[in-house]
Amino acid sequence: MQSLSRATLRTLVRSKTARATYPSRTTSGKVLSSRISPLNLSVTPTSRTFSTQSARCYAAAKEVKFTADNYPNVQRDPRFSKLTREDVDHFKSILSSQSSIIDAQDDASELEGFNTDWVRKYRGQSQLVLKPKSAEEVSKILKYCNDRNLAVVPQGGNTGLVGGSVPVFDEIVISLSAMNSIRSFDEVSGVLVCDAGVILESADSYLRERNHIFPLDLGAKGSCHVGGNVATNAGGLRLLRYGSLHGTVLGVEAVLPDGTILHDLQTLRKNNTGFDLKQIFIGSEGTVGIITGISILCPRRSNAVNTAYFGLNSFDHVKRAFTKAKTDLGEILSAFELMDGLTQDLFHQTTGKPYPLSDRYPFHVLIETSGSNGEHDSAKLEAFLEEVMGEEIVADGTVAQDETQALTLWRWREGLPEACAHWGGTYKYDVSIPLNDFYTLIEDCRKLFDEAGLVGGTEDDSKPVIGVVGWGHMGDSNLHLNVPVRWYDKKVERLLEPWVYEWIEKRKGSISAEHGLGFAKRDFVQYSRDETALEIMRRVKNTFDPKGIMNPYKYIPTN
Amino acid sequence: MQSLSRATLRTLVRSKTARATYPSRTTSGKVLSSRISPLNLSVTPTSRTFSTQSARCYAAAKEVKFTADNYPNVQRDPRFSKLTREDVDHFKSILSSQSSIIDAQDDASELEGFNTDWVRKYRGQSQLVLKPKSAEEVSKILKYCNDRNLAVVPQGGNTGLVGGSVPVFDEIVISLSAMNSIRSFDEVSGVLVCDAGVILESADSYLRERNHIFPLDLGAKGSCHVGGNVATNAGGLRLLRYGSLHGTVLGVEAVLPDGTILHDLQTLRKNNTGFDLKQIFIGSEGTVGIITGISILCPRRSNAVNTAYFGLNSFDHVKRAFTKAKTDLGEILSAFELMDGLTQDLFHQTTGKPYPLSDRYPFHVLIETSGSNGEHDSAKLEAFLEEVMGEEIVADGTVAQDETQALTLWRWREGLPEACAHWGGTYKYDVSIPLNDFYTLIEDCRKLFDEAGLVGGTEDDSKPVIGVVGWGHMGDSNLHLNVPVRWYDKKVERLLEPWVYEWIEKRKGSISAEHGLGFAKRDFVQYSRDETALEIMRRVKNTFDPKGIMNPYKYIPTN
Repeated sequence: MQSLSRATLRTLVRSKTARATYPSRTTSGKVLSSRISPLNLSVTPTSRTFSTQSARCYAAAKEVKFTADNYPNVQRDPRFSKLTREDVDHFKSILSSQSSIIDAQDDASELEGFNTDWVRKYRGQSQLVLKPKSAEEVSKILKYCNDRNLAVVPQGGNTGLVGGSVPVFDEIVISLSAMNSIRSFDEVSGVLVCDAGVILESADSYLRERNHIFPLDLGAKGSCHVGGNVATNAGGLRLLRYGSLHGTVLGVEAVLPDGTILHDLQTLRKNNTGFDLKQIFIGSEGTVGIITGISILCPRRSNAVNTAYFGLNSFDHVKRAFTKAKTDLGEILSAFELMDGLTQDLFHQTTGKPYPLSDRYPFHVLIETSGSNGEHDSAKLEAFLEEVMGEEIVADGTVAQDETQALTLWRWREGLPEACAHWGGTYKYDVSIPLNDFYTLIEDCRKLFDEAGLVGGTEDDSKPVIGVVGWGHMGDSNLHLNVPVRWYDKKVERLLEPWVYEWIEKRKGSISAEHGLGFAKRDFVQYSRDETALEIMRRVKNTFDPKGIMNPYKYIPTN
Repeated sequence: MQSLSRATLRTLVRSKTARATYPSRTTSGKVLSSRISPLNLSVTPTSRTFSTQSARCYAAAKEVKFTADNYPNVQRDPRFSKLTREDVDHFKSILSSQSSIIDAQDDASELEGFNTDWVRKYRGQSQLVLKPKSAEEVSKILKYCNDRNLAVVPQGGNTGLVGGSVPVFDEIVISLSAMNSIRSFDEVSGVLVCDAGVILESADSYLRERNHIFPLDLGAKGSCHVGGNVATNAGGLRLLRYGSLHGTVLGVEAVLPDGTILHDLQTLRKNNTGFDLKQIFIGSEGTVGIITGISILCPRRSNAVNTAYFGLNSFDHVKRAFTKAKTDLGEILSAFELMDGLTQDLFHQTTGKPYPLSDRYPFHVLIETSGSNGEHDSAKLEAFLEEVMGEEIVADGTVAQDETQALTLWRWREGLPEACAHWGGTYKYDVSIPLNDFYTLIEDCRKLFDEAGLVGGTEDDSKPVIGVVGWGHMGDSNLHLNVPVRWYDKKVERLLEPWVYEWIEKRKGSISAEHGLGFAKRDFVQYSRDETALEIMRRVKNTFDPKGIMNPYKYIPTN
């Protein structure tokens, strides 16, 4: 949620000089639409717009295949025991509430949501979901599982994009959803202590009422858990300004596989007393223990927030705009998000919403500033706008005039994962690339798919691929390559992998900037980390989880 | 070094309304001096000022006792081999330059600087210093030491304050001073890659020429190494604005005890590909390996920097000023440093420099702002000043009018460790305390010493203690309790320990905010971390250094 200041900009900026023609960038080579009405004017989608309703039905009808069937090369680890009725009875005896147990024997359908991931690509076959209500309950569960060699998968909001939060085979799901209380908040220091299962948006709303913000924001905020955010070292929209969770998380409460509870909910900004153990849990994706609580340093909510949306004619223009933004907006720049033209077309087509600008451009950028003084921020933004418009770096743009408009503009960025998933699924790659090569990945990938003849655009049901699109947190060199498809198709996957990873490796990028490894990228991690690093990682894993029961088949290869 | 903008404030602020009388706060109950001339006017120290020269001679004459003699309860670990001539010959054979070896057999006096710590409290008896020139040389050294069970102590600039960087017994010193090259800097991303032995100030100067800054700054910058900063997770003066090294360091190159080189010099801001191994090295104080290179995200240098110095009449006034600063200065606040009245007196007496304000106050605060727009920053600072002066929150203040004045003001903060060490030594405690209790520690500690009759002030040579003083990074809840003494005296130590630690434990503070544990605090870590955490730390240590050769007798108790 973007809040706007009392002294917000009243400018609706339109370039007088730099109006440019939008080149054909859709995969089918057609211009989908042009001269869409500006923000907040109601329009009827053109006849060429993809039918939203039929696509939704198509996607829903498609059953997700079991991961075990889809990836036959991955075998169930025979070291793990199979769940028995005695095990279930034992869990019933140690948990304080019977509602904490979802047992396939009672209602198999209720487990589906826990077995299937958000991108509908991975589906496990767990027979049991446990929803402990305290770290002590988590401890009892894990100790038992460890003794019995029962594999587990910790699950937060299940919004991960790499299949890390659902079982691969029959792992027991330990959901943190019943641990969702704020424990404390100190308005002087800004330190929030809360359960791992608190939903990110709830935490942010709670903080908003207290004039603070959660230092992390991401599209899935309405569902994802803060514990899951920490376990996956989520990056998101505020990293540019507030840094990574490695810097903002002050402490964790976590349970190790042997049931040991690490009570390390520090609330101090500085504490150099031995190894900073929480760091091992941040980004460990549930492989060394279960985070049950976090403490985190939350910044004050800015008095003034401005949101602007631009159209640009080339990636070179985007880079120049980024440099100008860093110089002119300095410490108040809180987001610099890139969306290519096709992403905006897909969002338009799947939602029917009118484009924010009257023309369409190959690149769009969403800029946000957050500062303590509305007048100063507006002056900085105006100076920036004068420069980028005067020098024809941006072709057109609009500045939100109130919070509703800001939220509307943000939807053109935050709604993209959903827009891409619309037709049935999305191949998602979340990579870091040095800025000079940043967008080349999308262009090269488009060529690859065009040559393979797999792209059907939005109107050709016979081909799997809708298109190749890119967006990302340009301020963090973090690009999201997305290939929306009608169905997950091995031909598509074989074209993408290891091609994407090899491409990234050549540029010394990262094959996973913020989404993590999960199941999807476990076998590709060597494109970003060498064998020495992986071997040290294995030692760390083994130190914490010698029996390997924590979230197996994922993260890093075991040998 | 503080750079001032072209559009800097031209204000020299003096309170018209809030002039207050400075109460007697010296330990002897005497007012040392009053009505000292303002900044930049030359004054002759009063007759009561302590003679700088005689104190220096006193301190220099005092030989530092061997740690082994001073702490007879700490025994040399018999598992470690003793250095032989064959070992020295072997090191000569594997190092590329003979100047990389300082051998006690050749010149024992040359080893003194490596054996004695900065606070002149700890002194080891190493017979060999090695100065490798590359990670490969470090690898060869460590592999040999590990095979031979030779204990080592990694050493950076040897500016640590807890005895962590000097040997306790005969550990071999591995100095990083010969690895001092900048490897690369990318102006677009702001990522610096350099050797561990680069001096912090050199790195910052290099970056300054490229319009960036190192995200860390501290008093010892002229000597400390960036590798040592990372190994000790140094906090310093810029943490308030740029966050901790856990957030800004992007990668490390490090050598494990078995000689394995971890090449993990990531230059990406986001990289979620497995455990973030660098985090284990940050703050590990040389106990798991030797950091030989770092990559770090460096912010752009601010166009505008303002420095202001205030006098305040009570700690309650300080707290109110801090709240106002956070609100009014928001994102441009880059330092809020507290110094009590006695610290300023000691600095004045040891340097002869005139006080910055015409009157003296029980509390002083140094505020720095750093922003991208000089006009905006000045306006923010002026609004802040109007409020704190108008509401009589601060009694008097001055704003630096140019870089020279800013540096002069900073000396009253940065020169304090040296001023305290002036008479012979300092008992130093670097703690985190929730803000409400922040200064009470100093007051309680003063009472303790007054009652024990150990305080002689600056004129009484018969008693060990000069006084009890406090300063710190209030913005980070980080206080430095200092007890300057004429000589290290067991009576003083017994009064302070475990008293200080128990005091901190009761307030849920940290017994080491930023200085680390080293030798000084190893046996007190349990006041801030529980046995579960310590046991997990031991597992981590053992994973990396199973033979325990890395910086032994320090950091955390081995059992």
